[in-house]
Amino acid sequence: MADLGRMSINQATTREQHSLAQAIAAYAQAGVPGISIWRDKLAECGLEEAVRMVRDHGLQVSGLCRAGQFPAVDAAARQACLDDNKNAVDQAAVLGADCLIVVAGGLPEGSKDLPGARLMIRDSLGALLPYARAAGVTLAIEPLHPMYAGDRCAINTLSQALDLCDELGAGVGVAVDVYHLWWDPILQAQIKRAGDRILAFHVCDWLVPTTDLLLDRGMMGDGVIDIPKIREWVDDTGYDGLIEVEIFSAENWWKRPGGEVIRTCQERFNKNV
Amino acid sequence: MADLGRMSINQATTREQHSLAQAIAAYAQAGVPGISIWRDKLAECGLEEAVRMVRDHGLQVSGLCRAGQFPAVDAAARQACLDDNKNAVDQAAVLGADCLIVVAGGLPEGSKDLPGARLMIRDSLGALLPYARAAGVTLAIEPLHPMYAGDRCAINTLSQALDLCDELGAGVGVAVDVYHLWWDPILQAQIKRAGDRILAFHVCDWLVPTTDLLLDRGMMGDGVIDIPKIREWVDDTGYDGLIEVEIFSAENWWKRPGGEVIRTCQERFNKNV
Repeated sequence: MADLGRMSINQATTREQHSLAQAIAAYAQAGVPGISIWRDKLAECGLEEAVRMVRDHGLQVSGLCRAGQFPAVDAAARQACLDDNKNAVDQAAVLGADCLIVVAGGLPEGSKDLPGARLMIRDSLGALLPYARAAGVTLAIEPLHPMYAGDRCAINTLSQALDLCDELGAGVGVAVDVYHLWWDPILQAQIKRAGDRILAFHVCDWLVPTTDLLLDRGMMGDGVIDIPKIREWVDDTGYDGLIEVEIFSAENWWKRPGGEVIRTCQERFNKNV
Repeated sequence: MADLGRMSINQATTREQHSLAQAIAAYAQAGVPGISIWRDKLAECGLEEAVRMVRDHGLQVSGLCRAGQFPAVDAAARQACLDDNKNAVDQAAVLGADCLIVVAGGLPEGSKDLPGARLMIRDSLGALLPYARAAGVTLAIEPLHPMYAGDRCAINTLSQALDLCDELGAGVGVAVDVYHLWWDPILQAQIKRAGDRILAFHVCDWLVPTTDLLLDRGMMGDGVIDIPKIREWVDDTGYDGLIEVEIFSAENWWKRPGGEVIRTCQERFNKNV
């Protein structure tokens, strides 16, 4: 079973209950050693205040969510996107985040050109990467479930993310999220292939039935993913970073008291990760 | 653009509007040359009556839906499943269906062992195949979208389905459905690899947003799939069979008059396939 000393909670897990300041305080008080931070919540809190609080509470920032959303309709939009991504790099650097999570983006408005969107993602990552390297921030490409290919992320398998890493070189790796990848028949081989390029490891569960494509993720143990098996594969690569619980759950966990959610995450982390 | 002379409609597209007898009559009257039949509707109609009506109306049966659902909790359930699958083979033979669609099945109740379910699928297909060969019925393994891996189908990529075909030998091929496969970064290469093993080609569209994992498929042209591009790849294999429209749409197309749905299918087939 997983060691609670390696646990992080992605603040989206209690996003309806907690501001960033509240999340930092609540996770730290519960003895959770890590937090992953979202930029919209960071903007509300202010970067300096967030840095101060994270330090004061001794939390490790397992990731900043998120850069990416690269495909765009024109050059101006691409430039605006690059600027925003550089800003995210700066924030990740100041926070000392373990990585900057990249959710690549889907089809531009009105487009059906998925291969074209994928080329834009590659080129935009290539344009961002020197800036990230200079800032000492590693980019974690997170393949998202194929059901998000149209509107959220056209990088949909670990294999595809690793091909991108191969092409882009140093400074970029992957985020492995069991929710997005558990179904993949070649997952074990691709996790092995990833090796030391695994920068983040996210857990939650796939519910049967799933009632919403985005906001019906399950607590570990409530679904059908063999999480310990995937964790074993990730462990075998030598990954020893934080393991992050990330649950979007509009109708269940977001409606419960924050303390109950955190406590349940810890119990299930112990039992089902 | 696709030729209406190659069009088939999967009767699920008007399943709320039509019995099988009504669907056969309505599709034929509209000049649609093909139909794909579901076994629950076939049971209501009766096999002999269905065969007579299909012949009288001169329809080609592009597929029988469906065999499969192989993973099971114990030997008795596996045997019951095999018996049901043999019955499906018999029905497909009598109907003269172009193929028997196989939706392999997901995890058995209570299981999280996805690799195990996949082995059950392989072994069950192996057990069914001699019977199907003897009946002259080809089995079309349909990879389903990864979002169905838990509860419906653990075969989730064309690559995986073709690996199964390689292992099983003659008498088995694949059904290519754009809804399930459009996101796959290696789809073009896998369609080429499939070659003459493509036994069915299904079209509909992926809506953004999609509001239900099962019953919110779109009419061709209403979503983000580049259907003509995928059709071109399928054409390039030499596939010259029927192209089947299959739309599950509880809140939209299932609520409209059957005639309107059929007419729209034809218009969009001409324009968006």
